[in-house]
Amino acid sequence: MAYQEVMEAARKNVGSFCKACPICDGRACRNQIPGPGAKGSGEGAIRNYNSWQKIRLNMDTITENRPINTQVQIFDVSFDLPIFAAPIGAMKMHYGEKYTDMEYNDILIPACRNAGIAAFTGDGMDPEVMKGATTAIKANQGFGIPTVKPWDKDTLLRKLEQIEKSRSIAVAMDIDSAGLPFLKNQMPPAGCKSVEELKEIIKSISQPFIIKGVMTVKGAIKAKEAGAAGIVVSNHGGRVLDGCPGTAEVLPEIKEAIGDSLKIFIDGGIRSGQDIFKALALGADAVLIGRPFVTALYGGAEEGVKLLVDKLGEELKDTMMMCGAYDIAEITRDMVRN
Amino acid sequence: MAYQEVMEAARKNVGSFCKACPICDGRACRNQIPGPGAKGSGEGAIRNYNSWQKIRLNMDTITENRPINTQVQIFDVSFDLPIFAAPIGAMKMHYGEKYTDMEYNDILIPACRNAGIAAFTGDGMDPEVMKGATTAIKANQGFGIPTVKPWDKDTLLRKLEQIEKSRSIAVAMDIDSAGLPFLKNQMPPAGCKSVEELKEIIKSISQPFIIKGVMTVKGAIKAKEAGAAGIVVSNHGGRVLDGCPGTAEVLPEIKEAIGDSLKIFIDGGIRSGQDIFKALALGADAVLIGRPFVTALYGGAEEGVKLLVDKLGEELKDTMMMCGAYDIAEITRDMVRN
Amino acid sequence: MAYQEVMEAARKNVGSFCKACPICDGRACRNQIPGPGAKGSGEGAIRNYNSWQKIRLNMDTITENRPINTQVQIFDVSFDLPIFAAPIGAMKMHYGEKYTDMEYNDILIPACRNAGIAAFTGDGMDPEVMKGATTAIKANQGFGIPTVKPWDKDTLLRKLEQIEKSRSIAVAMDIDSAGLPFLKNQMPPAGCKSVEELKEIIKSISQPFIIKGVMTVKGAIKAKEAGAAGIVVSNHGGRVLDGCPGTAEVLPEIKEAIGDSLKIFIDGGIRSGQDIFKALALGADAVLIGRPFVTALYGGAEEGVKLLVDKLGEELKDTMMMCGAYDIAEITRDMVRN
Amino acid sequence: MAYQEVMEAARKNVGSFCKACPICDGRACRNQIPGPGAKGSGEGAIRNYNSWQKIRLNMDTITENRPINTQVQIFDVSFDLPIFAAPIGAMKMHYGEKYTDMEYNDILIPACRNAGIAAFTGDGMDPEVMKGATTAIKANQGFGIPTVKPWDKDTLLRKLEQIEKSRSIAVAMDIDSAGLPFLKNQMPPAGCKSVEELKEIIKSISQPFIIKGVMTVKGAIKAKEAGAAGIVVSNHGGRVLDGCPGTAEVLPEIKEAIGDSLKIFIDGGIRSGQDIFKALALGADAVLIGRPFVTALYGGAEEGVKLLVDKLGEELKDTMMMCGAYDIAEITRDMVRN
Repeated sequence: MAYQEVMEAARKNVGSFCKACPICDGRACRNQIPGPGAKGSGEGAIRNYNSWQKIRLNMDTITENRPINTQVQIFDVSFDLPIFAAPIGAMKMHYGEKYTDMEYNDILIPACRNAGIAAFTGDGMDPEVMKGATTAIKANQGFGIPTVKPWDKDTLLRKLEQIEKSRSIAVAMDIDSAGLPFLKNQMPPAGCKSVEELKEIIKSISQPFIIKGVMTVKGAIKAKEAGAAGIVVSNHGGRVLDGCPGTAEVLPEIKEAIGDSLKIFIDGGIRSGQDIFKALALGADAVLIGRPFVTALYGGAEEGVKLLVDKLGEELKDTMMMCGAYDIAEITRDMVRN
Repeated sequence: MAYQEVMEAARKNVGSFCKACPICDGRACRNQIPGPGAKGSGEGAIRNYNSWQKIRLNMDTITENRPINTQVQIFDVSFDLPIFAAPIGAMKMHYGEKYTDMEYNDILIPACRNAGIAAFTGDGMDPEVMKGATTAIKANQGFGIPTVKPWDKDTLLRKLEQIEKSRSIAVAMDIDSAGLPFLKNQMPPAGCKSVEELKEIIKSISQPFIIKGVMTVKGAIKAKEAGAAGIVVSNHGGRVLDGCPGTAEVLPEIKEAIGDSLKIFIDGGIRSGQDIFKALALGADAVLIGRPFVTALYGGAEEGVKLLVDKLGEELKDTMMMCGAYDIAEITRDMVRN
Repeated sequence: MAYQEVMEAARKNVGSFCKACPICDGRACRNQIPGPGAKGSGEGAIRNYNSWQKIRLNMDTITENRPINTQVQIFDVSFDLPIFAAPIGAMKMHYGEKYTDMEYNDILIPACRNAGIAAFTGDGMDPEVMKGATTAIKANQGFGIPTVKPWDKDTLLRKLEQIEKSRSIAVAMDIDSAGLPFLKNQMPPAGCKSVEELKEIIKSISQPFIIKGVMTVKGAIKAKEAGAAGIVVSNHGGRVLDGCPGTAEVLPEIKEAIGDSLKIFIDGGIRSGQDIFKALALGADAVLIGRPFVTALYGGAEEGVKLLVDKLGEELKDTMMMCGAYDIAEITRDMVRN
Repeated sequence: MAYQEVMEAARKNVGSFCKACPICDGRACRNQIPGPGAKGSGEGAIRNYNSWQKIRLNMDTITENRPINTQVQIFDVSFDLPIFAAPIGAMKMHYGEKYTDMEYNDILIPACRNAGIAAFTGDGMDPEVMKGATTAIKANQGFGIPTVKPWDKDTLLRKLEQIEKSRSIAVAMDIDSAGLPFLKNQMPPAGCKSVEELKEIIKSISQPFIIKGVMTVKGAIKAKEAGAAGIVVSNHGGRVLDGCPGTAEVLPEIKEAIGDSLKIFIDGGIRSGQDIFKALALGADAVLIGRPFVTALYGGAEEGVKLLVDKLGEELKDTMMMCGAYDIAEITRDMVRN
């Protein structure tokens, strides 16, 4: 099976909102929410994509021809590539009848592990989603990062206990979920959290805590104060607030403010190894990729996931070689230009 | 009735110029004047709309989850939202046969009041228009802002006397009306006014006086010298002069020059709660919205107006929560980026 | 006859290259040269047009309502408007069979004079063109500006003698004509001229001498050194060199370098009274307009020309009133923004 | 035969990927690789083209009308124009069945020489390609620049020996070829080279050595350290790395860093004499042009090449005259604006 065949199969399997486009840039699905499109005008996902395209690569091949190493250490775990599958949930609402959240995670988690990376998993109002995700992560030696929504305290503590037991690599909370239209006025309630509230939550669990949905220097500093081990620079793919900047626009200033004190992940419109290279050059430690993992899995199950990871890895290696970085740590800010 | 149904009904009722577009951005009606389009090339309304889209929102949800308060005090009156219906007139010329100016105002004024906001009303060559508007405003405890054109002194004084008696919240003059093609060489004559002339006019009435149609720092300072209590940063939706900047472009410099010495209203292409938030962040105290009130009213009468105000209010609240402002006064300049 | 009818008639009369477009912006005729399009890629004329659209008008109607005066004095002659018809030649090659250059000038010169302005006339390889133009100008009390191509010295002196006798208001030379593809390798030869050569030419004639085709500060300073009384900031409508900046882009720096020491004319994509106002605000003393005079004349002869001039005059007056300038001399740099 | 007829003939002869477009800007062939399109998203070739269009020409025709001289001296050889045919290889893979690499070179090398310029020739996995190229160059008194891929040392030394014997004007290496998808994992292997490796290679041959594929100041300085006599600022037409800047974007900073210490060639989207002029004004000594030579040769063989060179030469001369540069050395930075 070739990646292109996976995408063709995906077109039949992913429901009516996602078109499994050859270039996944938020145009074909704009305005479809619920459904996987962006909120409001639908410009959010498109802006994310475009903000990577504006950054250009400083090619330099007058370098010693060494083997390329894409391995990274994050929270004392070694990964083959600085790539994570992004947390996705409510699969049936967004991507049609093929998979429940549990079925999706049961394929994704081992598929990612076998491909040398790890998956973030999503959360849902149905408690079975987190239960299933944490069970699957535990069964895969903790290779996964459960992502909990910013629920009320009781719900949170119950879910964090499950996560604690999964011995997952880390735990994440998508703090920006309060903006998801389909979570409005639902039970359990989800909402913003203060630094004090986050401190208490973070202390309650032993895994490294990642706050997802940071788009400002101010937010990054608050995440640090709250005791987070990492942040995900993210606007939730444009799905929580119409009118955000692209994540590539805000990454450099957040990196400058935060330095190496937190691990910096980023998502939003990252679609190729070139984009991954750009994110690393601008200061990210790793990237999260969402929709392409959905289409790869819906089109080719575990094999699809492997093909996607290999394709991204090859593109990243090719870009590293062409810009003179033979190790992830050698990727520097001057290798891209705005 | 849902807002989308209101818009569908509007499409049948608003005449041939306005298309009641899902995104009201000045494109479909450009060049149609008289008719509700913009003057000359028709770029004015489009530029207004686009200038809000260029401003981006700095999302930050690491905040305490408090109740959101959108109430504002303007001229010692309390409003549920910082939103006003903009003055519209010559309804039959612009929007077909359904309503006269008087019929439109008789629906709009109480509908806005019941929705927790107030309407500016338009003016016309026919003296019955102002008579009807002021009568309706008086019947609604003064909840409305009659807007008078910059007529000759005698006409003005006669109209201001009617307005005085209406006990309206405030009074406005759209000083830029001289540029309206259909007012050229008509009776009574309308035209520019000097600071001295405005001083005399403003002194003649006890209500707070708002000068609408200010697009420069120079103009704002003159409005202040003349004794105005507020200004509307406005280019009349592109209908009085082709080639103006978007109102969002000039608001920051006017706010910087004027500070809190005048109330600053703004209109032009504001179509969502996100846009309202951007206007407040850039220094406005409240916004005026025109065309969407026309289509809401033509499509759903009082219920349509209510649905529009609720929609805008929900979007504004959502944006405030996602940017960490739980009260209108907490919306600050650093919550948006250009 | 209305201006729109003139344009409809023009569409039938102007040959196959010009489409007499409602918005004359160089798109429909691009790449057609010979024919009235721009040279090479055809972007030159489009860029000229767009460069005016980017400049925005600072509306301010808090002003005393005075009568508007558009009169200007140039070379001690009074004109009703700061507008000149641009020199056009080779009519049959560009605009079909309807008029010879002589017939065109015989209508244009008196039509402009009667409309309160004056026409520049074009030149050609056929000596009859200049003879006809100067005869017509003389018959109209000198109300016209013959424009001579940069021929060899003998041809020039012969033509300048004819011009001298016409008692024309002024004389112009389109120094950039060497770039016209249809003049390449023709007789008489046309080409660049040094400051020394221009000095001698300018001294040979008593009328004020205008050098047309200046696009740089360097060129403007050389024109002054050569003894010119004025320059036309022009790239020949994109017809002599593909890739020039728009004339609006270079006007401010030329004005800053030259001040009031030379009269500054400008052409290139000026299509409305708003554009004329922008040109004056950026430092021009008057504008030249080309294509619209061609279509007005081909569509409505003298009446068409009158309708065009009136339309432009009304738009200019309207813009002046809306920006608070009641006299041409009151139009200042701060009335526009880039 | 006219150039337009050559292009029409080319359309039938160049295979299915290249469309022999009237404006060769990378749009019609994007994403087709192998095939002559750009890599990845295909934006690379388009960006190259567009980056020249953004640079504008400062026309100035107030100059003495002297004869125009386009001759340049490079590596002590005199050329009629600062233009070289770019190295192209794998003709059958990219341009259909009409010509082998050897047949293409056998037409191109003498055609260029007869037109007063010289051709770079390409390289291939098949050793016959370099053998054929060097034989043809030798037969044409060394008028050609063989371009070797960055092979392993043994392959390189063998090929450089052939080149040495050809007595070619110079020798080039496209150091960025490692990014060509169709060279991946092939024999002989091609890859990056360090400064030390390049030093040894460059010392092994007596001709001036040109490193092609430099896109950064850093790379240019390394090329100098390695002993190169010249560089080609090039991103291989977007074919080796998706996301590079346009070559016109990086040329000025490379020129500033390198000065006159190396000859600077440039390619990428240069399609007209105006573009050539812009490249020279920004600091290049000469340009390489690729695709247009392919279409000219496939459409008109030697005559097509001659027509292309003449067309480019005429456009260059025309631009020089219109900007006041009568000799290549007189083209200066202030003759263009960004």
